[in-house]
Amino acid sequence: MPHSIDLNSDLGESFGRWTLGEDEALLELVTSANVACGFHAGDPSVMRRTCRTAADRNVAVGAQVGYRDLAGFGRRFIDVQAGELRDEVLYQVAALDGFARAAGVRVRYVKPHGALYNAVVSLEAQARAVVEAVRDYDAELAVLGLPGSVFLAIADQSGVPTFREAFADRAYTGEGRLVSRREPGAVLRDPDEIATRCLRMVCDGEIVAADGSVLQVRPDSICVHGDTPGAVAGARAVREVLGARGVSFQPFTPR
Amino acid sequence: MPHSIDLNSDLGESFGRWTLGEDEALLELVTSANVACGFHAGDPSVMRRTCRTAADRNVAVGAQVGYRDLAGFGRRFIDVQAGELRDEVLYQVAALDGFARAAGVRVRYVKPHGALYNAVVSLEAQARAVVEAVRDYDAELAVLGLPGSVFLAIADQSGVPTFREAFADRAYTGEGRLVSRREPGAVLRDPDEIATRCLRMVCDGEIVAADGSVLQVRPDSICVHGDTPGAVAGARAVREVLGARGVSFQPFTPR
Amino acid sequence: MPHSIDLNSDLGESFGRWTLGEDEALLELVTSANVACGFHAGDPSVMRRTCRTAADRNVAVGAQVGYRDLAGFGRRFIDVQAGELRDEVLYQVAALDGFARAAGVRVRYVKPHGALYNAVVSLEAQARAVVEAVRDYDAELAVLGLPGSVFLAIADQSGVPTFREAFADRAYTGEGRLVSRREPGAVLRDPDEIATRCLRMVCDGEIVAADGSVLQVRPDSICVHGDTPGAVAGARAVREVLGARGVSFQPFTPR
Amino acid sequence: MPHSIDLNSDLGESFGRWTLGEDEALLELVTSANVACGFHAGDPSVMRRTCRTAADRNVAVGAQVGYRDLAGFGRRFIDVQAGELRDEVLYQVAALDGFARAAGVRVRYVKPHGALYNAVVSLEAQARAVVEAVRDYDAELAVLGLPGSVFLAIADQSGVPTFREAFADRAYTGEGRLVSRREPGAVLRDPDEIATRCLRMVCDGEIVAADGSVLQVRPDSICVHGDTPGAVAGARAVREVLGARGVSFQPFTPR
Repeated sequence: MPHSIDLNSDLGESFGRWTLGEDEALLELVTSANVACGFHAGDPSVMRRTCRTAADRNVAVGAQVGYRDLAGFGRRFIDVQAGELRDEVLYQVAALDGFARAAGVRVRYVKPHGALYNAVVSLEAQARAVVEAVRDYDAELAVLGLPGSVFLAIADQSGVPTFREAFADRAYTGEGRLVSRREPGAVLRDPDEIATRCLRMVCDGEIVAADGSVLQVRPDSICVHGDTPGAVAGARAVREVLGARGVSFQPFTPR
Repeated sequence: MPHSIDLNSDLGESFGRWTLGEDEALLELVTSANVACGFHAGDPSVMRRTCRTAADRNVAVGAQVGYRDLAGFGRRFIDVQAGELRDEVLYQVAALDGFARAAGVRVRYVKPHGALYNAVVSLEAQARAVVEAVRDYDAELAVLGLPGSVFLAIADQSGVPTFREAFADRAYTGEGRLVSRREPGAVLRDPDEIATRCLRMVCDGEIVAADGSVLQVRPDSICVHGDTPGAVAGARAVREVLGARGVSFQPFTPR
Repeated sequence: MPHSIDLNSDLGESFGRWTLGEDEALLELVTSANVACGFHAGDPSVMRRTCRTAADRNVAVGAQVGYRDLAGFGRRFIDVQAGELRDEVLYQVAALDGFARAAGVRVRYVKPHGALYNAVVSLEAQARAVVEAVRDYDAELAVLGLPGSVFLAIADQSGVPTFREAFADRAYTGEGRLVSRREPGAVLRDPDEIATRCLRMVCDGEIVAADGSVLQVRPDSICVHGDTPGAVAGARAVREVLGARGVSFQPFTPR
Repeated sequence: MPHSIDLNSDLGESFGRWTLGEDEALLELVTSANVACGFHAGDPSVMRRTCRTAADRNVAVGAQVGYRDLAGFGRRFIDVQAGELRDEVLYQVAALDGFARAAGVRVRYVKPHGALYNAVVSLEAQARAVVEAVRDYDAELAVLGLPGSVFLAIADQSGVPTFREAFADRAYTGEGRLVSRREPGAVLRDPDEIATRCLRMVCDGEIVAADGSVLQVRPDSICVHGDTPGAVAGARAVREVLGARGVSFQPFTPR
């Protein structure tokens, strides 16, 4: 059983007049913030504010990169050609790093969002495009992704540091993929269930899939969501239950 | 009379399926490229390509920052609040710098575009917002602007290196402002007239305004446009006429 | 004192993943719905849903047209040229009318939103552009605006039916303009104060401005906001207080 | 051999500062104009102008509907959910019809664009969404599509008038699908080859596919492209060669 674990959450997903998520509360609980970069969510002022608060609280800043799709919140697969996707990802990472630098820190890792996250699990061209963008921007930048994904495999082959995550509140298929949000039961809501699930992930290295099978995991980070009702309660429960077992919380990215 | 002068041009203004300007030809003629950053023109792949070509030809890369207004090409004044504008400018500069770094160079200066260019001539809140973004991002970054503008004055007070430009092909008011593009005669088209005008700017430090009065200028750079018919011919004429007088061409930004 | 009055509210202002306002509750209280058309807020599915619910409840559908500015929620003045603005407004009205028709009704009036609302109070070119769009689309369409505005004057001269509104929860200047949202005290929050204010508007034809002066008004409609905390409570208070005086509520637009 | 045929072309694809296609010349040659509606190309002023010119020349106006993807010009498949797609299509059709009405005509048909065109050849959910939008908007509206497509089949079952088109300048697979633009040889450029190909389509009902097989077609309309170099020459050659055989040109949509 590990002495420490990272908690990551999608943050900075407000846009203009529209607010989303309980960023203030979650930035007290997580150790890594996946900050949206303006293509599917987030705007420059939200990015600045989120980086600033993360930096003040020693929360590591990661780039939550996505498809160029505000209307769809990055949740719709887009068949972007690899070269364009690489450039769109580099653009997002660099833009966010501007706000990280202004807050005295740096972007430390990249995590694809939504439909792009799912695409790079298996789609080689898009996975490679994201990895190339990461390498082009900064050779020390890490990536965070799904264990067993093509994305992490390509990153690893390319010399990019890779970190694996497990989801506190998402249902898994028997193959270790996420159940689509379009399916019922895809998102767990009960804080106790979420905490118990995380305990088993971290202590036993196991997740029970939707079909009842048991998946083996060794996560570097646990993803708690920020935009679902009860997100804060879920994250708090995870910290309490794991903390009671002596697990501490710190960013997976070294510095 | 100066031994050398800089020629700058707005480049990288294509977007997606739509191409604009003769970037390839102009990147052979200018010494500084004001590269659009995606808010009013330009997209990530265009930005990458433009930075790459500029770097290959030792053309200095500058950030052509503008209002968030693709539909209006940044040519419509927007009453953005200062904090938002500062963040939007920082976002653009940082994003472009990602591509500059990928091409082995850095963004060396910032030049506002279109309606923002005109706004910061006199509007203190917006001028200050742009200057703050520049300083927030990189203390060594320079700005390029209109002599006598509030923008250059605030940049200067803030310790940001300032450079002054004159326009090869734009009509001036008697007050040294640009005649609005919505007015007839705002843009000059004849290469000979453009070249003669530049010769007088550089050798005598003078521009004849639309009302016949003579303005005093000491430009660090001359702006030639890239998106007007005959832009290349104009730029070529400027190089020939000035070159014949022994003037050489090099970036205003030291490195 | 009038037997009946209209209550209007800005609705359908959600966008994609982001929700805003308490549309369900307000559509039980208002008699006219200013439905956002996708340029500053609203998306096609939100538009369909809002038109459908409004039609089911006999709430009149109006087009809440605005600048093309999702990032700024239409609250930033944009110096659009008249021809472009006319076309952007026509586009929005026609698009919304598609959903109104699909719900078995029609768009009955047009009300500019945010910074456009304020611009057409005094800016003739933009006011005329909006009126032209309304006439181009449908000669029977009405407009709703601020009493004394250039917008209503031009609409009136052009033969477009005009209706005047007063704001339940916005502070007025002594000249009968709205106090800018950027100023403190611009938006009233207390339901009792709002209701009392509306009672005086409707029964006595008076509003007390921020400077203490008393403005004369004869509103055809009262605007209650949908996106401020307590909006529903405010609208409910208005209905109760006015209803207790025997005022009934019905759309200002005949049909 | 038919006495008459329709020629359709994608028009109105400029956006803001960016122009595309030779609309003026093509509107002299085609009988049906697929006018972009602002989601992947086109803006309100371009839509107005294109509808006006089409109306003046008795060219039928059709809605060229596409994915919400300006950056990708609608050429990237997007996995939009059916309900959203239906609403996005209805929005586009209604918006365009506003400009058609302002020009004294009406939108007569709907033709999906780019990746959406290809998607509805086989993807039932998206095909049905487009058909539902067409029916929701106007029961008399027709659709134009690829013979053998799921789209035309569903439209037909739904009582929507269907029309079949063949492409003058696109390569076909042996299954009667279009070769992807990402493949070499997907677009034909030689006017003589294009004209000869059209002659065979119209007179013999045959197209030779890329694999050499011969496809049977009975097109109601031939699509000539507007945004490729030589588009005008191609369209002109088609008119000349077919005209010489006594074929006349008129819209497929009755009115």
